[in-house]
Amino acid sequence: MSTIGRLDAEAAAAAEARQAILTKPTSALGRLETLSIQLAGITGRATPSFPDKVVVVMAADHGVTAEGVSAYPAEVTPGMVANFAAGGAAINVLSRHVGARVVVCDVGVNADLSALSGIRHYKIRMGTANMAQGPAMTREEAVRAIAIGMAVVEEAVAEGASMFATGEMGIGNTTAASAVIAALSGRPVAEVTGRGTGIAVADLPRKVAVIEKALQVNRPDPADPLDVLSKVGGLEIAALTGVFLGAAAARRPVVMDGFISAAAALAAVRLCPAAGAYILPSHVSVEAGHQVVLDELGLVPLFDLQMRLGEGTGAALAMSIIEAAAKTLAEMATFESAGVANREDAESGETR
Amino acid sequence: MSTIGRLDAEAAAAAEARQAILTKPTSALGRLETLSIQLAGITGRATPSFPDKVVVVMAADHGVTAEGVSAYPAEVTPGMVANFAAGGAAINVLSRHVGARVVVCDVGVNADLSALSGIRHYKIRMGTANMAQGPAMTREEAVRAIAIGMAVVEEAVAEGASMFATGEMGIGNTTAASAVIAALSGRPVAEVTGRGTGIAVADLPRKVAVIEKALQVNRPDPADPLDVLSKVGGLEIAALTGVFLGAAAARRPVVMDGFISAAAALAAVRLCPAAGAYILPSHVSVEAGHQVVLDELGLVPLFDLQMRLGEGTGAALAMSIIEAAAKTLAEMATFESAGVANREDAESGETR
Repeated sequence: MSTIGRLDAEAAAAAEARQAILTKPTSALGRLETLSIQLAGITGRATPSFPDKVVVVMAADHGVTAEGVSAYPAEVTPGMVANFAAGGAAINVLSRHVGARVVVCDVGVNADLSALSGIRHYKIRMGTANMAQGPAMTREEAVRAIAIGMAVVEEAVAEGASMFATGEMGIGNTTAASAVIAALSGRPVAEVTGRGTGIAVADLPRKVAVIEKALQVNRPDPADPLDVLSKVGGLEIAALTGVFLGAAAARRPVVMDGFISAAAALAAVRLCPAAGAYILPSHVSVEAGHQVVLDELGLVPLFDLQMRLGEGTGAALAMSIIEAAAKTLAEMATFESAGVANREDAESGETR
Repeated sequence: MSTIGRLDAEAAAAAEARQAILTKPTSALGRLETLSIQLAGITGRATPSFPDKVVVVMAADHGVTAEGVSAYPAEVTPGMVANFAAGGAAINVLSRHVGARVVVCDVGVNADLSALSGIRHYKIRMGTANMAQGPAMTREEAVRAIAIGMAVVEEAVAEGASMFATGEMGIGNTTAASAVIAALSGRPVAEVTGRGTGIAVADLPRKVAVIEKALQVNRPDPADPLDVLSKVGGLEIAALTGVFLGAAAARRPVVMDGFISAAAALAAVRLCPAAGAYILPSHVSVEAGHQVVLDELGLVPLFDLQMRLGEGTGAALAMSIIEAAAKTLAEMATFESAGVANREDAESGETR
């Protein structure tokens, strides 16, 4: 984490200067312009490009599903991991669409997936323990999960990866994410807990009660993100925290998906505040509490399509918008190069 | 217009049924799901695909620029058309990014562009007359512009075009669009008039006064969209009205860009209400009055990136999201095909 530094002010300034001479009214591309400037600062290049985009999908199971907090059986986790490997899930379709590749990692699925090809095998344990009765995992296991996330990024960067997005799969993981966010933000559990994959409204109070019990049983220290991740988090959440930290260390933009990714991002920024500048928003999820984390991180979502799937689906769509921002910066003609007349006055600071 | 019919209910129902068995929680892809169902209804195909996407950019000049309503000189219009032809404008970059082709049409640029290759030459006249002093064009010219828009779509469809987006270029055209929208919606001019390419706040009252004068001088009949388009519209706006109508007649989705496209869409729907179902939203522009038209058309924008460039830039980005919606419908595995367990209860109607 000590290698995570500030954005490159010189590259950002060069990008900002270039935006002012491109063939468009001043600031008319709105957030595409501010994104492009941030991307320059992240990468240290005045006109960055992102030919190799990687969606990292971390998968793990949750012992807390024994409490009946999900609308889907826990067996869906290994089933969906196989679906990812076969290319049939939403994240596969959307990643193909935006020209990204998907790296799926088993960091804690409660099934033997060793024979499954097309995924990375980093299983730490067969799912977490039931956090309503004790710690989800040990502190050492949480550290290992973070290290795996960082190593996956490092390896992808060595292969040429230029932009990352976070995704996950794990039946029960909105329960863990709500617990992490409640612990780190100090917000009431009910404020950051939603219906996940779609439990009935009548079942929501039980889910809230389970999370409250987990926090009472474990008493995670809000000032110690590792304590929070290990006691009430998840193996995939901790691994994604590592993805955020690894991307920031490698000066690569990392696009945050929905609610579970947000829990991991919040933990990453609490561990290393400098990492925040490398995290880009995607959508705002239907899941209650996602907006809370966006606010905590100072992120404004790029779109709201009422999605709540996870897997990295919102982040994959956002990758395309973010890449578009970089391409307009790099590829548009300038007023001079195109021989187009510029504005009649000089009050560009005044407009917008 | 008599060929514009209702959406195909059978195809839409088939798409909706398929969404329910794809490997994701019920409704978890949010608006991507509802978009995919609408696309099925538009095309009449249960799993539509959009391999050939076309952004139609209509360009024309505005006599009302003599009143000093724009921050940029009118010579920018032919300059930007040449920039489009050379591939250096934002719409070129974004269309390449999303895999769309750009068809640029001169329907009324106030310059001789006959030697410019890479654009379509359909010039009706050298820009409109100054609407603050009389009608912008004749009714017959407005009809010709609409017919050109329809013909451009028809020709592209014959070549295989499966989805359209609208774009435009014309210094002064936010002034005309505000006049059209004020006339058709009955809203006060000040409510639907913004700073366009970036006039100073202090110059906005003059722009509003020019539009009010144009409406007083011409007294367009709100019940007669052709009267409105010809008296206070623009050649590119009328041509885009034709693009919306042509796409609806060909059962192709047509993505509406920003403020000027919205004026054209409103006129199209007033001419033929059935066309509305074929028009898809993209972003909401910074320009005051865009939201008014979105509300009139019952459209909810897909994103708000604080853009206000026109050219079709917001619509091009939206095309990619809309195509993503179609791909998830067509390409995702079902619970059965992937061998994944479905939800534990049967209350899918209750969730979300």
